[in-house]
Amino acid sequence: MTPVVVRNPPRADADAVKELERFGVATVHEAQGRTGLLAPRLRPIYPGAHVAGTAVTVSVPPGDNWMLHVAVEQCRDGDVLVVSPTTRSDAGYFGELLATALAARGVRGLVIDAGCRDVAELTAMRFPVWSRCVSAFGTVKETLGSVNVPLACAGGLVHPGDVVVADDDGVVVVPREEAAAVAAASAAREGKEAVSRERYRAGELGLDIQGMRDRLAAKGLRYVDHAPEDQQR
Amino acid sequence: MTPVVVRNPPRADADAVKELERFGVATVHEAQGRTGLLAPRLRPIYPGAHVAGTAVTVSVPPGDNWMLHVAVEQCRDGDVLVVSPTTRSDAGYFGELLATALAARGVRGLVIDAGCRDVAELTAMRFPVWSRCVSAFGTVKETLGSVNVPLACAGGLVHPGDVVVADDDGVVVVPREEAAAVAAASAAREGKEAVSRERYRAGELGLDIQGMRDRLAAKGLRYVDHAPEDQQR
Amino acid sequence: MTPVVVRNPPRADADAVKELERFGVATVHEAQGRTGLLAPRLRPIYPGAHVAGTAVTVSVPPGDNWMLHVAVEQCRDGDVLVVSPTTRSDAGYFGELLATALAARGVRGLVIDAGCRDVAELTAMRFPVWSRCVSAFGTVKETLGSVNVPLACAGGLVHPGDVVVADDDGVVVVPREEAAAVAAASAAREGKEAVSRERYRAGELGLDIQGMRDRLAAKGLRYVDHAPEDQQR
Amino acid sequence: MTPVVVRNPPRADADAVKELERFGVATVHEAQGRTGLLAPRLRPIYPGAHVAGTAVTVSVPPGDNWMLHVAVEQCRDGDVLVVSPTTRSDAGYFGELLATALAARGVRGLVIDAGCRDVAELTAMRFPVWSRCVSAFGTVKETLGSVNVPLACAGGLVHPGDVVVADDDGVVVVPREEAAAVAAASAAREGKEAVSRERYRAGELGLDIQGMRDRLAAKGLRYVDHAPEDQQR
Amino acid sequence: MTPVVVRNPPRADADAVKELERFGVATVHEAQGRTGLLAPRLRPIYPGAHVAGTAVTVSVPPGDNWMLHVAVEQCRDGDVLVVSPTTRSDAGYFGELLATALAARGVRGLVIDAGCRDVAELTAMRFPVWSRCVSAFGTVKETLGSVNVPLACAGGLVHPGDVVVADDDGVVVVPREEAAAVAAASAAREGKEAVSRERYRAGELGLDIQGMRDRLAAKGLRYVDHAPEDQQR
Amino acid sequence: MTPVVVRNPPRADADAVKELERFGVATVHEAQGRTGLLAPRLRPIYPGAHVAGTAVTVSVPPGDNWMLHVAVEQCRDGDVLVVSPTTRSDAGYFGELLATALAARGVRGLVIDAGCRDVAELTAMRFPVWSRCVSAFGTVKETLGSVNVPLACAGGLVHPGDVVVADDDGVVVVPREEAAAVAAASAAREGKEAVSRERYRAGELGLDIQGMRDRLAAKGLRYVDHAPEDQQR
Repeated sequence: MTPVVVRNPPRADADAVKELERFGVATVHEAQGRTGLLAPRLRPIYPGAHVAGTAVTVSVPPGDNWMLHVAVEQCRDGDVLVVSPTTRSDAGYFGELLATALAARGVRGLVIDAGCRDVAELTAMRFPVWSRCVSAFGTVKETLGSVNVPLACAGGLVHPGDVVVADDDGVVVVPREEAAAVAAASAAREGKEAVSRERYRAGELGLDIQGMRDRLAAKGLRYVDHAPEDQQR
Repeated sequence: MTPVVVRNPPRADADAVKELERFGVATVHEAQGRTGLLAPRLRPIYPGAHVAGTAVTVSVPPGDNWMLHVAVEQCRDGDVLVVSPTTRSDAGYFGELLATALAARGVRGLVIDAGCRDVAELTAMRFPVWSRCVSAFGTVKETLGSVNVPLACAGGLVHPGDVVVADDDGVVVVPREEAAAVAAASAAREGKEAVSRERYRAGELGLDIQGMRDRLAAKGLRYVDHAPEDQQR
Repeated sequence: MTPVVVRNPPRADADAVKELERFGVATVHEAQGRTGLLAPRLRPIYPGAHVAGTAVTVSVPPGDNWMLHVAVEQCRDGDVLVVSPTTRSDAGYFGELLATALAARGVRGLVIDAGCRDVAELTAMRFPVWSRCVSAFGTVKETLGSVNVPLACAGGLVHPGDVVVADDDGVVVVPREEAAAVAAASAAREGKEAVSRERYRAGELGLDIQGMRDRLAAKGLRYVDHAPEDQQR
Repeated sequence: MTPVVVRNPPRADADAVKELERFGVATVHEAQGRTGLLAPRLRPIYPGAHVAGTAVTVSVPPGDNWMLHVAVEQCRDGDVLVVSPTTRSDAGYFGELLATALAARGVRGLVIDAGCRDVAELTAMRFPVWSRCVSAFGTVKETLGSVNVPLACAGGLVHPGDVVVADDDGVVVVPREEAAAVAAASAAREGKEAVSRERYRAGELGLDIQGMRDRLAAKGLRYVDHAPEDQQR
Repeated sequence: MTPVVVRNPPRADADAVKELERFGVATVHEAQGRTGLLAPRLRPIYPGAHVAGTAVTVSVPPGDNWMLHVAVEQCRDGDVLVVSPTTRSDAGYFGELLATALAARGVRGLVIDAGCRDVAELTAMRFPVWSRCVSAFGTVKETLGSVNVPLACAGGLVHPGDVVVADDDGVVVVPREEAAAVAAASAAREGKEAVSRERYRAGELGLDIQGMRDRLAAKGLRYVDHAPEDQQR
Repeated sequence: MTPVVVRNPPRADADAVKELERFGVATVHEAQGRTGLLAPRLRPIYPGAHVAGTAVTVSVPPGDNWMLHVAVEQCRDGDVLVVSPTTRSDAGYFGELLATALAARGVRGLVIDAGCRDVAELTAMRFPVWSRCVSAFGTVKETLGSVNVPLACAGGLVHPGDVVVADDDGVVVVPREEAAAVAAASAAREGKEAVSRERYRAGELGLDIQGMRDRLAAKGLRYVDHAPEDQQR
């Protein structure tokens, strides 16, 4: 794969992105059939951030952040930058200067399966980052990578223009073509949960709300009263 | 081991639990001879929580949270749910709906050697969770497990009815039969530390407060003044 | 290596330490040629701490904190205690009593490639700790180690009297003899970044600010417009 | 929990142990309902070992192997020593001398959720060890633990006298009381697999042998022929 | 993404695969510009295996190997099965029966970012597997996944029909369309290395063979003779 | 720290190195007071290697092996190359060509806290390597590091000229000045163990050989006979 920068990939529909932003990562992930979730090693650098945007993807060499500067130029208002190194790297690819550049273009945040630094400054700016680690280790600018190519990032597959939703629970990717459908499924799921929530709050059991008792019995679940001789296992 | 739900195991004495709640995890762990501490990979989802309660234990398959719904019915006011998968799982077994169900029954918190999700909502509810990771990955409801059986959880052994104490330092388990004795030992330890604390604050050294100098010398500790040629090692 | 306590090693110049404290860890690390950074597994127990001080080093056996008490006596106002076990240990070597003792001597904080406990109390005291993990597991006092010897800690090399700078990004060590030079280089770097920051904020690109376009082209970077058939890779 | 050595716990029936030794770890684990498997971090120090025996359990402090010497005296012909530290330790608790002592008593092997050393010598002796790591780091003999108490080891729960089966796939624990039943279930499973194996070898598909096609269709699995436009996801 | 099985994706040219099999993973990875290497956590279950084949990809739920049976039917002579779970799983998805089924169809091996079991039997069969871990933990057959879709596996991106080369150094993926070009580049690289090897064997230095001295000097590398006072850093 | 190559550091006495080579890593580590052992993540690429030599140290940037070529020139017959990156790197710094160059100079082996590749070829050459991982990921040659400076490697501190002993148990470093003393202490330890070994083989217990019974009793160890009611803990 020779290094390449792909300009102007199609982005997911802006209305669908806006709609998806209303939902949490867990809801979106469930609504699309438990797919698209990135690995839980990606953690937000501060609590409370919740964004949705369209992916600009970047494949970077380990310890080299040159392509991030290239990628900035490809970003538009409403994008989220998604970065993955070609092999594990704990270096700090991203800090306050790049965040300033991205914020100036309306980018919503960064997802990176590597390190981030300047976290105090990024927190003060409220520029959200989901990263593998916090690391001040500096990077070089020597080797090319690619921008806006399909990317394996933290166990997930991200195409440029896909929707990225990120909150305190992590990061989920919604394929561009499915954004509207997943937003609708998310809304449906949330509606259903709102009803359940009231019943749970009133003390009802999931066993009854979801009608699980027969199936549990059919699978062979036994209930026994505690007896001292049972306690050994 | 066939799946089983044990009803009504004996709980630790409520007064002892209440007494243990006064102490930090480190104190309780030391007071019972440096045992009972669960692995430090269990971290609270928000800072500042501090609970004590009686364990309802749940052995779950990887990626399957069906038994949590079964376990809810076995919980009472003052319990803490303790969950461990039969092999490592990073799935998000627990979220806001189950927390609502547990809170409605007076459960004090959750300890789980797996993933938790909806952490923003759980934080807002102040329902404390100590978990291995934060993960939105969804679970299925296909395979049975067991409730209120002895459980290996995060390197510790937990019996139903044991006391669980959890705070910012982690999670410690106190055997049911020893709850009152450990509470008393914790109080004793804390009293002793209060005295030491004043002496430390006044600038006294642990070497003197604890009378360590002779034993250090007997073990062969040497003191030397710095000399440039010493610095190489 | 027989256990030894080295008294009165030379400390870095106090003015240089004070000057270095003005800078973030990332800046200092870059200013000294991307060296001296400790591994990112060392994390602060609470956000917002930022200290600089002179290292008092402690080599400790796994699970044994006896030498910390010995080290307290060797500490002076403005020091930072730096502790590393001879093999990996997740035990909780350090808590509120030792912090009280160190604070009474003017010590600025602790860096430890092992566990720390009493984090709620330490946070309340504002005694900052950078540690590998939070763990309440208790330690013994049976085996000697050494104080103020050169130390491998979290992948870095620390000599007694070196400057330690720590903030939300991690921990960096500056050799004692180079403290003033690194402070000057840090100031220079920060000045340069302030200029760049304004340009980034105004929407200029790093590609232009740093003049990268020619070198990227020379390395062979290609730009292509998105075409559906390109999207497969 | 005060330190204690329990003498003469009941052992699983010797014939059942002998019978279980015929089966691999995967078969036994499946035969008892996918329970009892210890974490895959336990690896054999050399390939090809396959043993079954009755557990003598040892709870040890981190970095302290004193109780292993105590445990040797409690071992009999046909036992397997099972050791777990109270918090993570990478120390090398076990080497050639202890193996010589155990071999002299007819002990079949060691399972330890910590480090092992002298692996060249142990391999030459053909004394099998399943351990978390290979580590030469030495241990002390200062702190007590317990022998023949229920033990959480590598995520599993082991009682003294349980059957331990270990091979290249890892380690599984069979509760003492269920040894004969699990041996019978293992034999049944193996017989069934032998039949399947012949069919697989002849080129039949699991889809047909296990009759999966209808259920897959009912769950909604779609088959499509490759078309270039399908390839983007 | 709804579960789907894509039939008959194009495979890389058989001659190119055969040619690529002549080269080691490191050579192929370098020849295609240091891309395509899967994470080093994938290790062979026995040393000495070296295969190349065309990828049949499988996306599987955690702890559920149902889709492996579906995938077998899609495999042809010369394929390599490539499997990745949607979130981390240490379960043992694959064992001797599936290997028998794959071997009957001429499949060359398995690459799986999860667990494998029956490693003694697989070794005896010489069916090579590169896996994240060895684990006997059993899987269920309850949830669908997809076959022959683009897959993120161990940090890399694999399309059905791509070439997979695997040996003792790990696993590398070559895009289908680039197979012949990468084979040619690998041959060129190997030819060049053969020449270098002779020069290295004769005692020449890489500094001279690769003409590095001037560039090192230009970067500022200093040579100094050892002096005691230099040794402190 | 500006990059530097230190020429001709003093080496440990050749006779002491030769003597140390007779002993295993565990013995040497114990003989020098349980110090000097590198972390157990360093594993040999093939079993059975056992070497001792004098350290040539190399500090390398992450993912950049340029300095290895520089270091080769500084190596002499009987040396061991010891390499550590300035932050974690899983790249494959070292392969067959560099091994050929080192072997031509009489270097005994490599210790590297990063990745190694060409392991099949290195095994065939019998050039031993202890590394953090096996990884084919290629490195660049862009950034300087230092040769023959004190080095933190895998948790240990290595000076140029120190003795490195490595075998199947791992790697231990003996300070240059202490080589002869540690060799003598190793011989003494081994002699003592030979006597113990015979007694263990004859069935004597460590409890008696090492006279532990009184001290165990004094610490409070209790022996009890198994009773069913004891078994719950």
